[in-house]
Amino acid sequence: MKEIRNERTLYPYLSLIEYPRDLRKLLPEQLPKVADELRDFIISETSHNPGHLGASLGTVELTVALHYVFNTPEDKLIWDVGHQAYGHKILTGRKLEFDTNRKYNGISGFPKMSESNYDAFGTGHSSTSISAALGMAIAAKLDGNETRQHIAVIGDGSMTGGEAFEGLNHAAATNANILVILNDNGIAIDAATGGLHSYLTDMATSRAYNKLKNRIWAFLSNEKTPRTHTRNLFQKLKNSLKIFFSPQTTLFESLGFRYFGPVDGHNVERLVKILADLKNIPGPKLLHVVTVKGKGLKPAEENQTKYHAPGVFDSQTGEIIEDEEAKKFPKFQEIFGHTIIELAEKNDKVVGVSPAMLSGCSLDMLQKKMPERVFDVGIAEQHAVTFSAGLAAEGYRPFCNIYSTFLQRAYDQIIHDVALNNLPVIFCIDRGGLVGEDGATHHGIFDLAFMRTVPGMVVTAPMSNSHLRNLMYTALSQQAPFSIRYPRGRSGEIVWKTPLKKMPIGKGRKLLSGLDLAIISIGYIGNNVMKAIRSIQNEGISVSVYDMIFLKPIDEDLLHDACEHHSKIITIEDGTVIGGLGDAVADFITENNYQVELMKLGIDDYFVEQGTIAELQRECGINPPGIVKAVKQFMRE
Amino acid sequence: MKEIRNERTLYPYLSLIEYPRDLRKLLPEQLPKVADELRDFIISETSHNPGHLGASLGTVELTVALHYVFNTPEDKLIWDVGHQAYGHKILTGRKLEFDTNRKYNGISGFPKMSESNYDAFGTGHSSTSISAALGMAIAAKLDGNETRQHIAVIGDGSMTGGEAFEGLNHAAATNANILVILNDNGIAIDAATGGLHSYLTDMATSRAYNKLKNRIWAFLSNEKTPRTHTRNLFQKLKNSLKIFFSPQTTLFESLGFRYFGPVDGHNVERLVKILADLKNIPGPKLLHVVTVKGKGLKPAEENQTKYHAPGVFDSQTGEIIEDEEAKKFPKFQEIFGHTIIELAEKNDKVVGVSPAMLSGCSLDMLQKKMPERVFDVGIAEQHAVTFSAGLAAEGYRPFCNIYSTFLQRAYDQIIHDVALNNLPVIFCIDRGGLVGEDGATHHGIFDLAFMRTVPGMVVTAPMSNSHLRNLMYTALSQQAPFSIRYPRGRSGEIVWKTPLKKMPIGKGRKLLSGLDLAIISIGYIGNNVMKAIRSIQNEGISVSVYDMIFLKPIDEDLLHDACEHHSKIITIEDGTVIGGLGDAVADFITENNYQVELMKLGIDDYFVEQGTIAELQRECGINPPGIVKAVKQFMRE
Repeated sequence: MKEIRNERTLYPYLSLIEYPRDLRKLLPEQLPKVADELRDFIISETSHNPGHLGASLGTVELTVALHYVFNTPEDKLIWDVGHQAYGHKILTGRKLEFDTNRKYNGISGFPKMSESNYDAFGTGHSSTSISAALGMAIAAKLDGNETRQHIAVIGDGSMTGGEAFEGLNHAAATNANILVILNDNGIAIDAATGGLHSYLTDMATSRAYNKLKNRIWAFLSNEKTPRTHTRNLFQKLKNSLKIFFSPQTTLFESLGFRYFGPVDGHNVERLVKILADLKNIPGPKLLHVVTVKGKGLKPAEENQTKYHAPGVFDSQTGEIIEDEEAKKFPKFQEIFGHTIIELAEKNDKVVGVSPAMLSGCSLDMLQKKMPERVFDVGIAEQHAVTFSAGLAAEGYRPFCNIYSTFLQRAYDQIIHDVALNNLPVIFCIDRGGLVGEDGATHHGIFDLAFMRTVPGMVVTAPMSNSHLRNLMYTALSQQAPFSIRYPRGRSGEIVWKTPLKKMPIGKGRKLLSGLDLAIISIGYIGNNVMKAIRSIQNEGISVSVYDMIFLKPIDEDLLHDACEHHSKIITIEDGTVIGGLGDAVADFITENNYQVELMKLGIDDYFVEQGTIAELQRECGINPPGIVKAVKQFMRE
Repeated sequence: MKEIRNERTLYPYLSLIEYPRDLRKLLPEQLPKVADELRDFIISETSHNPGHLGASLGTVELTVALHYVFNTPEDKLIWDVGHQAYGHKILTGRKLEFDTNRKYNGISGFPKMSESNYDAFGTGHSSTSISAALGMAIAAKLDGNETRQHIAVIGDGSMTGGEAFEGLNHAAATNANILVILNDNGIAIDAATGGLHSYLTDMATSRAYNKLKNRIWAFLSNEKTPRTHTRNLFQKLKNSLKIFFSPQTTLFESLGFRYFGPVDGHNVERLVKILADLKNIPGPKLLHVVTVKGKGLKPAEENQTKYHAPGVFDSQTGEIIEDEEAKKFPKFQEIFGHTIIELAEKNDKVVGVSPAMLSGCSLDMLQKKMPERVFDVGIAEQHAVTFSAGLAAEGYRPFCNIYSTFLQRAYDQIIHDVALNNLPVIFCIDRGGLVGEDGATHHGIFDLAFMRTVPGMVVTAPMSNSHLRNLMYTALSQQAPFSIRYPRGRSGEIVWKTPLKKMPIGKGRKLLSGLDLAIISIGYIGNNVMKAIRSIQNEGISVSVYDMIFLKPIDEDLLHDACEHHSKIITIEDGTVIGGLGDAVADFITENNYQVELMKLGIDDYFVEQGTIAELQRECGINPPGIVKAVKQFMRE
């Protein structure tokens, strides 16, 4: 039986808790101890098994309070995004497995319905929790179940995503039993921005209002009078106070939510009292909780962006332990970051747009040099794309950088606002392909397929650092939509600072000429092909290798060459086998009536879970040994 | 030279106006006449050439005022959705062409950048205008242009779309020069719903506030004191008044917009004064304008849903002239509407979800019978899908009905919230394929391709009324995501009330056995195939016809049959040729190494403009004569 070393000594309270029912046996005054231990446990575990540290440290007290007050899993608790749910996982039967967090065959770093019935809804992308919780609350209503509670915990960052607003707007018009907990830490991954952020900051810092409000909360908590009467009185008082002291408090109430807060999200006993009260208030309500991202680990509190997901660190000091060897190789995002600076210095129409991922995509580098030319639009992919279209319509050249998985949110805007208007927005699609530990919700495996459907879109993926740079440069010379996708992580090439050269549109390249079969790939995954071929070069297998660079327009000359000289072709892409490169080649073969056997490698039609990229590429058969195996098998057939 | 009959007599003012510069020569007191004539002109033209009547009647005065006050096209005017922009088109050089509105080779029913430089941004889908206007406003800022104005006109319905909120949130954090005009008519296509709607209604009907506000407006308009001073005073007064009289006015101000209004959207002189004032107020601001959809045509005011796009009507009485012959054939949406009632009567877990398209998709039929089981979530496709996922997670069986073109907005939610959680949401995709007069922004041509990429999704399209019903019935028997797509318009079969039968998953059918070639189709377009084949049955051409029914999982037995018995195969789909049925068949052929020539028919890789469905099918070569031509040509090759 697996166990945690020295658990009773190190975690006297936590060791007693396997499920929330154990937590509920404790007294409220014991909960701060539980929270402290939970925090220590998260720090200790994530120090050697990296993950989303900052967000989960910020929600420790809230997690304890929620599971203490609410009858989970019968009551439905949904964590928006879900990277703040480590405490939740640990308190709901997954403490012993937590050392497998984000690992291959381990537990997911995000809530996952198939993993636990405490994970009421699978999350990973932002701003979905209110919608899902409302669906469940309406289901309870239809069932005649008036007691079940439905709680969505959503960060102030996620609240800027349009879907959250859509959910609020609908929820407000129902009398469904839904509690939205706004976890306001003033930061997404980078510092929060936008009108909502200013508003929440005003709210949380309005002293006069908060002082009086606190007295009322105290009054409510100690009341002897019948509940309903008090609540009514409380509501009246609260409303009148707000109008007087804080006219801005009505944003959520304007929409029809009862608003409560702001309250200190690190006072677990207070949270328990408030949540217990809210449990008895029917209808849509919102509790504004103020938390500190990274709470309890000093460097994490002080550098919240860096400690969002810090990698391995010293559990005592918090000091991040960097892999100096790896750092010799540039991150793909850094190549983008350096290159856009070069381009922006030469062309004053170049601007950068990112939905709350400035540091994640390295646009922060340009921001430092030219702050007025970089736009962090909040977690708002749809807006990011249409906003870029607006800039492009007036002569600017936006590089709109969005992670592949999040770009799925803007598919309609890409079609309707960019392509249909034929506006020269340049999409830099970061995290294209398997992303590793973030798992199924985050793999960027659909972009090649969905971008290929868009009329007029140039769809590219570089195989080398210089091509990444050259494609960015080339995109600027085009007066049409253009996309460049590249993966997460570090390049295998140290060199990146190559001179910028324009690449011919729709032209790929032949890297090797062979006789037995042809391998056609696109993007950095082509390096796996080259490794595979090199590893069997002495085995008498003669392979042609093509790097398409452009998925659309596709290089038909190159495909004719492949089809004319080979009877067997393998396509490889770091994306779904449906709709991408493999389909484009199949299409070409059948259209031109070539008698060629085709084997498509890529991500098969299922959701790949988490693990290292190497493990997942192995699972999908697109690592070098997998490619060798496919080549040999295909040749035998 | 084309001209409008009796223009000088019927439209003495309008006849003087070709472009806004002509309008600006008039005196403000002449503008009501212009508005009246413009309204008459719109009614007269759309009575015989149908279009979006109601919305455009509601914005007549606003349109006149905007072009009078602002220096279009230098100032940027963006119409959200754009179906309210008929007056705009008529006043900006397209009066003579307006009789070609929505016609093949005519002008588009929506703003279109390539059509006129007065169309600052192409629209059609909702909630994009603020984002686009902000992009342009930021471009002006970067250019150092402080005088250019950027105006987004957005309805209260469109304001519920999440992207609008994303745009507001970002805009508020800038000091960009953007004016959002909230065109509040309380209705999308069906009556508006949601928290925002209630809020706006409260605003517009708060008498105490409005009375005082009106006095201030009057004061402002007549002021003799220096402008800046007055505005400051005005702001102070306004803010304090609001806090006192109308605590709810702060929704937009909470986000950082200056809020003005509500004002009567049918008083053109007043609008001119207000807009002229707002022109001098820098930064993000919102003007709340109250209008009546269908204004000036009594039946249109009284039945706003029906007169959203009424078809042909009597220009004097407004009476709609129905095509009794056509009505014998059921609309596809009606078959859906009737069938979901049957299913809901038998299964109390069946519910219907629609993003502001209840009457458009015929869910209003179920709503009349079981109002508690139908959910209009507002213009909010993302939320509609995740909300459905929440319902499904708790045992309900939502039929989530979304037009194909709008479902593009929820691609991420389909993947991330439905498929990844393996929740049995049933997507009914209405308006799949070419939709006709609405044109490029509205054709539903991507859904087969993008739904096919989603792991675990069953993707179907019926060819007959009974299959549409049977697929809905079959979907209910599955515990996984399921989609059913069908076109706009009326079925060619009168009969629809067939007994419900379960269909085997992933099984298609062979309709005809022939020798020369095989045609493989999916969906109602298969009826074009049958017509084509019947028309050449005496010409000695022997064709096999397959109706796949399921795009995913695809019927491999049937495809083997097709490949084994034919050397030439044609695929036909009412959707893009990239990524859909054609690619699936090409994929199958190459994977199984068949020596078969493939011809793919469908929508080529470009944006098809407007026209009747018959005209557009002809253009794309998927009408019966086009199919005959393709068959003959392919056989000759």
